Amino acid sequence: MTEPLKIAVAGLGTVGAETVRLLAANDEMLARRSGRQMVVTAVSARDRNKERGIDLGNAAWFDDAVALASDADADVVLELIGGEDGIAKAVSEAALANGRDLVTANKALLARHGAALARQAEAAGRSLAYEAAVAGGIPIVKALREGLAANRIDRVAGILNGTCNYILSAMQTSRRDFTEVLAEAQEHGYAEADPSFDVDGVDAAHKLAILASLAFGYEVDFDGVYVEGIRNVSLRDIAYADELGYRIKLVATARRTPDGIEQRVHPCMVPLSAPLAHVDGVFNAVVAEGDFVGSTVYEGQGAGAGPTASAVVADLVDIAAGRRSPTFAIPATELEPMRRASMDRHRGRYYVRLTVRDQPGVIADVAAALRDEQVSMEAMIQREQAPDQHGAVQVVMTTHTTVEASMTRALDRIGSLDTVLETPRMIRIAAM
Amino acid sequence: MTEPLKIAVAGLGTVGAETVRLLAANDEMLARRSGRQMVVTAVSARDRNKERGIDLGNAAWFDDAVALASDADADVVLELIGGEDGIAKAVSEAALANGRDLVTANKALLARHGAALARQAEAAGRSLAYEAAVAGGIPIVKALREGLAANRIDRVAGILNGTCNYILSAMQTSRRDFTEVLAEAQEHGYAEADPSFDVDGVDAAHKLAILASLAFGYEVDFDGVYVEGIRNVSLRDIAYADELGYRIKLVATARRTPDGIEQRVHPCMVPLSAPLAHVDGVFNAVVAEGDFVGSTVYEGQGAGAGPTASAVVADLVDIAAGRRSPTFAIPATELEPMRRASMDRHRGRYYVRLTVRDQPGVIADVAAALRDEQVSMEAMIQREQAPDQHGAVQVVMTTHTTVEASMTRALDRIGSLDTVLETPRMIRIAAM
Repeated sequence: MTEPLKIAVAGLGTVGAETVRLLAANDEMLARRSGRQMVVTAVSARDRNKERGIDLGNAAWFDDAVALASDADADVVLELIGGEDGIAKAVSEAALANGRDLVTANKALLARHGAALARQAEAAGRSLAYEAAVAGGIPIVKALREGLAANRIDRVAGILNGTCNYILSAMQTSRRDFTEVLAEAQEHGYAEADPSFDVDGVDAAHKLAILASLAFGYEVDFDGVYVEGIRNVSLRDIAYADELGYRIKLVATARRTPDGIEQRVHPCMVPLSAPLAHVDGVFNAVVAEGDFVGSTVYEGQGAGAGPTASAVVADLVDIAAGRRSPTFAIPATELEPMRRASMDRHRGRYYVRLTVRDQPGVIADVAAALRDEQVSMEAMIQREQAPDQHGAVQVVMTTHTTVEASMTRALDRIGSLDTVLETPRMIRIAAM
Repeated sequence: MTEPLKIAVAGLGTVGAETVRLLAANDEMLARRSGRQMVVTAVSARDRNKERGIDLGNAAWFDDAVALASDADADVVLELIGGEDGIAKAVSEAALANGRDLVTANKALLARHGAALARQAEAAGRSLAYEAAVAGGIPIVKALREGLAANRIDRVAGILNGTCNYILSAMQTSRRDFTEVLAEAQEHGYAEADPSFDVDGVDAAHKLAILASLAFGYEVDFDGVYVEGIRNVSLRDIAYADELGYRIKLVATARRTPDGIEQRVHPCMVPLSAPLAHVDGVFNAVVAEGDFVGSTVYEGQGAGAGPTASAVVADLVDIAAGRRSPTFAIPATELEPMRRASMDRHRGRYYVRLTVRDQPGVIADVAAALRDEQVSMEAMIQREQAPDQHGAVQVVMTTHTTVEASMTRALDRIGSLDTVLETPRMIRIAAM
């Protein structure tokens, strides 16, 4: 057996502490699998005296994480601090600048600086490993980078945010609205006090941008991701989805189109026949389609200390065993700027719900607007219903495949009709 | 870029030909991902003149596959011949003996000789790669060996035979019996003329034995796999499964128990809430559970030229990029003989269907037999029904968790009752 792998851990929050715990719990097995002992030689965290229930042995303590990344006696630095800039970025750059491999769980950092960090790592001949940054314990980074390496990838789509999936699942099963379920999720610790990062789709977009770079061979392009969160998903839409044979999920999709790569995160009507429809609660799942392999699906816990530590240590095993790969599947110097497909040119099917005045002629006006914009209606539901106190009834329809720009124009026209009483609600229907 | 990776292909059947096609179709991308060009320098097949629709370029032709493995100008040999002994084994040994890496899709070979070939490969410092041998295009070998490397694996369970899954899915949806659906599957090419290898569970057992070695770190032990096929699954059982909230699937399970590793392939009642219940047709899926990651699921096409070629070439990319791993996750010299858990000591829940005479006292006798063997009944269904022409009615029950040996003894006693008219039918209920 060769020299031990010396590990410096920056950040001892839940993931950092669990990683230390895992390294101790499975140490013999890890040595057999990687060919080397793994030893934590240095740690850094904000509070030295906090009780974490882990044994740090003889690890050197650094108050300054950047000093740890630069000066610790270590082969690898684990960046488990988080945040897209500031100290996490400084730690990562310092680790690579000092010839160490870098393992990070930081999706925000990679979504912003992935291509630059990859170039720095590869120029230095070091690994930048980030299995933990996307979909927690699911080894999806390895699957896309190595397992499906023979394929031209055509689509990657996933449920990448456990908080949103928990909220949507709970709304669906208990028929309680967003606000109520969010409050419950916050109580249980499934949602942050400020939930916007999750429920507005930013976290899923970070992860999608990383997967898209890996799958399609372009620079990570977070700014190119179209993002819509789940705040506007209503119980009414969930009930109609049920009736139409769909589940509403926050789906992150990156797709190869003739115009370039489409990257989008938004609520989706997912047909019950699709695997993603059955991914509930805090689970994550990713569908990856390749030209030879066809469709493959990966599912598991997308967050939590155990699954995340599992992913961090898998990266350490690769490093210890000397297995290296280009950060984003091809050499970082060959990553070109993302070829963005405009969302206006997205083609798909749509669900639309209108709150309209209960009077003759309304549907004719709506149908005319759709016709004028070349949007073809597939089905319409207007059940016999008593109008509410404002004299309003609900009309729901689905369209055949159409272009986003046409749909947008049609919805603008429909929304401006006198007989349409609220802003039309639109949810894209997933093509799977 | 370094020297090209020179590839010798032994076997140009559907998988061999598709692999050559993939290498040509995605050649530039493969070179970027692996850092090397991939060139087919030699091929071997039975019939030189067969039209395969592929361009073999300047590849040298060998009539003798063993000569190809020994003498071709190649870094890697692809063994795509099949069969557990004979020429496939000779080719594999010759490739390794001559210092070449070996990629194989041959599950029968590995199920029988996996540990020995792994020792030969590792002693020679070569790779023995076999992603294509298990679950086709799903990168499950890589997931277990690397992606989940941080975990002690506690269970691997999967739907590993597409033919059986196609037959069971078709029986369930069209309510036609085994014989009829098998004939249809044979017509469509989903089942062989001699289907026993698939429908008797042998193929799934080969794959399970490989996964178990990889997951638990013991020598491949095909003879230790308990195997029951699907010939006895009846439409009656499928209808009762439906009613009870299950799907009947041929499930291959390897599980860590206090007594050792349980390896078994048999029809299972899978609860509708479990991911495996929704894997239909020719799809495969594997559930892998680790101590830190929890439960993860992998799904995709388990056979077919495209998915299998995808897996073969993924192995080639690893080899070209210099990524090496111990064949079965730990060094082959450290693989110990499988610690077999006896099937008698299996603990689980059971579904039992009895054909009994329609007269008072029958249930009391059955219940007494169960009680005497300490088997605790969970539920019983005996719908009001007219007896058939033999005066027989159906009684279905499920048990609480019990020990296989007790269940076997209870069924022996029940089967010998005068009022029980046919051999009792038992199907294990999956714990997931």
